[in-house]
Amino acid sequence: MNVGIIGPGLIGGSMALDLRLRGFAAEVTGVEKDPVASDAALRLGLVSAVLPLQECVRRSDVVVLAVPVDAAIILLPRVLDLVEGTSKTVLDVCSVKEPLCKAASSHPARKRYVATHPMAGTEYSGPWAAEPGLFDGRACIFCDAEASSPDALEVAERLYDVLNMRVSRLPASDHDLHVAYVSHISHVTSFALALTVLDKERDEKHIFDLASGGFSSTVRLAKSSPVMWKPILKHNRENVLEVVDTYIDKMQAFRDAIADADEQRLGELITEANRIKRILK
Amino acid sequence: MNVGIIGPGLIGGSMALDLRLRGFAAEVTGVEKDPVASDAALRLGLVSAVLPLQECVRRSDVVVLAVPVDAAIILLPRVLDLVEGTSKTVLDVCSVKEPLCKAASSHPARKRYVATHPMAGTEYSGPWAAEPGLFDGRACIFCDAEASSPDALEVAERLYDVLNMRVSRLPASDHDLHVAYVSHISHVTSFALALTVLDKERDEKHIFDLASGGFSSTVRLAKSSPVMWKPILKHNRENVLEVVDTYIDKMQAFRDAIADADEQRLGELITEANRIKRILK
Repeated sequence: MNVGIIGPGLIGGSMALDLRLRGFAAEVTGVEKDPVASDAALRLGLVSAVLPLQECVRRSDVVVLAVPVDAAIILLPRVLDLVEGTSKTVLDVCSVKEPLCKAASSHPARKRYVATHPMAGTEYSGPWAAEPGLFDGRACIFCDAEASSPDALEVAERLYDVLNMRVSRLPASDHDLHVAYVSHISHVTSFALALTVLDKERDEKHIFDLASGGFSSTVRLAKSSPVMWKPILKHNRENVLEVVDTYIDKMQAFRDAIADADEQRLGELITEANRIKRILK
Repeated sequence: MNVGIIGPGLIGGSMALDLRLRGFAAEVTGVEKDPVASDAALRLGLVSAVLPLQECVRRSDVVVLAVPVDAAIILLPRVLDLVEGTSKTVLDVCSVKEPLCKAASSHPARKRYVATHPMAGTEYSGPWAAEPGLFDGRACIFCDAEASSPDALEVAERLYDVLNMRVSRLPASDHDLHVAYVSHISHVTSFALALTVLDKERDEKHIFDLASGGFSSTVRLAKSSPVMWKPILKHNRENVLEVVDTYIDKMQAFRDAIADADEQRLGELITEANRIKRILK
């Protein structure tokens, strides 16, 4: 099976590596406008050729859109135009799904498209960040699967099976709400934490010296790229805002308990937060 | 050299392990009031005996106070009473230092005490959480070192050298301010994140399924024990409050940029947050 990766960066490039290594893909070609990234994707062996969009889609049985969500919304109808009347499968891997499902909804080739969200990644981006095994054991959500044709779904399932992902299904609107809670908010809180510490700690050496493992892991996501995260926060705005507001309320509750030296309330808040242990190892 | 660990839990127990394994300590005994923890510390081989405080201090050349900061403030003068007139060294390992330095300041045996903060740990606690190598390569801060006698400082330096820590010195008040920025705030933001997600996501299965690595690492510290963190937030109240207020302002800035769909501002905020990359790998 030939695979075309539009945007062979962290996610697309990691897919490319494992799909070829594990025998799913006979050939992986890519589309990449940026000449530096294109060169890297070739040199790192993520793709065997970088092609114009039309040529890449023509040569591929499966086309994976692995670009930031704003670019994906524009590209998806164009790719569907190119696959209309064929048995090719088109996937995207964005972490916001409703705007993509909407962008495809009235397209005559809608059934060739499977909206997927492989929930894996790191705080790095670009072809340099691609790594084998990135998806192993993680969750992948298929959204509005009933709008995709059974054979396209089957190809997508096989692809994610090769990547060792646990696939489940959700309506796009549910997905976007849940990821606001368990993924998008973590990025906003990390960005805010980085800004706070950079603001307060003029002496960067102190940050470096004093940052224990706790700080590093909490602030890790603050390294994430604005190219990816600006459009996510924009396109999942309503859901993210709701969670951000709840979060600010919780911070305020802590603030008040600390200000009042209310040890009982502090203990209650921390004990309640500890319940996360039951869910996450 | 004989070492006495008051509170052989995560920090004290991990020290006990490496100090004996690496030949610094001939014998490690402990003080532990809780019978379950005491039994575990013995069974796990962290200490060779659990003794009454007086007996443990009598047998030890170095006494390490490894209990939550509220307990340490009460115990420190009692331990200094017991070492008065001897050449024993007393350390504490708390992450707030000013209240401890104050508690010791007028004690006749003040010079036997070295205020230290080995910046290492995990979100777990108790003797079960002790692990070898916990301190390797991490930073350790000595506070108000000029109030300690040179020979006590030398013992403390040798001890942390065996633990492979990078020792530096700060006034206690500076230390408490800096750790509010790079450690205590991370715990508060993690607690608030856990509360938010637990509140919003009634269906715990969704948290488990959808939580990608990003969420897990950001929320990890929310598993931290209230027994340790309630007193830290209380005793470093002024500093923590200042950082929490700045942090809430930064969250509000993100909130407003998202609400206004102000992409330029969002991009600026994220790009500014990304500067943390230059400091932390």
